[in-house]
Amino acid sequence: MNRLAFVLLLCMPLAAVAQTQPTPEAQAIITILNKSADDWNRGDLDAFATSYKNSPEVLFMGRTIQHGYDQMLARYKAAYPTQATMGTLSFNQLAVQPLDAQFATVTGNFHLERTAAAGGNASGYFLLVVEHTSAGWKIIRDATTALPPPTTK
Amino acid sequence: MNRLAFVLLLCMPLAAVAQTQPTPEAQAIITILNKSADDWNRGDLDAFATSYKNSPEVLFMGRTIQHGYDQMLARYKAAYPTQATMGTLSFNQLAVQPLDAQFATVTGNFHLERTAAAGGNASGYFLLVVEHTSAGWKIIRDATTALPPPTTK
Repeated sequence: MNRLAFVLLLCMPLAAVAQTQPTPEAQAIITILNKSADDWNRGDLDAFATSYKNSPEVLFMGRTIQHGYDQMLARYKAAYPTQATMGTLSFNQLAVQPLDAQFATVTGNFHLERTAAAGGNASGYFLLVVEHTSAGWKIIRDATTALPPPTTK
Repeated sequence: MNRLAFVLLLCMPLAAVAQTQPTPEAQAIITILNKSADDWNRGDLDAFATSYKNSPEVLFMGRTIQHGYDQMLARYKAAYPTQATMGTLSFNQLAVQPLDAQFATVTGNFHLERTAAAGGNASGYFLLVVEHTSAGWKIIRDATTALPPPTTK
């Protein structure tokens, strides 16, 4: 066995562990979330919002509980009036936990990279409930916690 | 019409609005949550924990994401070693949002009343996913945010 083959063999079990193999449904859900981050990073809040179900029953939990797609979009537009305030959004540690054929939950971490003038960086965890609608998987519940900002010197 | 009947008539529509009529399933879920608060307030963490599904897939989102019934119970026992540290728990604004016959979400507000020596009061919102199991409705996902403590003089 040559040296390269040996190194590859050593790496294989690690790669198998690191590579959690999402189901096609889980992959479809993750693709939608990643697309929503791309929409955000283009400054397109209307496109970003389409990852949510267009329904008054969409529900958000942060520091309070709020309802409704239209209200969500209005809040986003008020809170992020410019592309600078939107910054650059990334999702990490995305994981899908199936419930049944129609519903699943998704957990992950978000990070918003932003200049101090535009509001500074922000990070937190989220738990989403997604529904398999006729228009594909859509977010119907969103629980997001913002971590305390890192202490600055 | 006498004066009392007129007042009663005036009050009726208000009462009808205030009285959201939960479905039997929603009422069953709310009853389980209220029982869990009673268990907590008796200092019985093992009973409190039974409102969750006894599964390694139970998932918690707070400042991080954690899994597992046994781990949850161990964390609770470490964080709340005495009845004084457990304080008095109450749930408010409980609302059930059905998903399908097997799953629903629940939102609400918690308040923990506690002496300063035992850690002080705490409050926050939560979003739960509950599953209709053979043992009744059980919590399978718990996203809880702690509100910042009220500023003290």
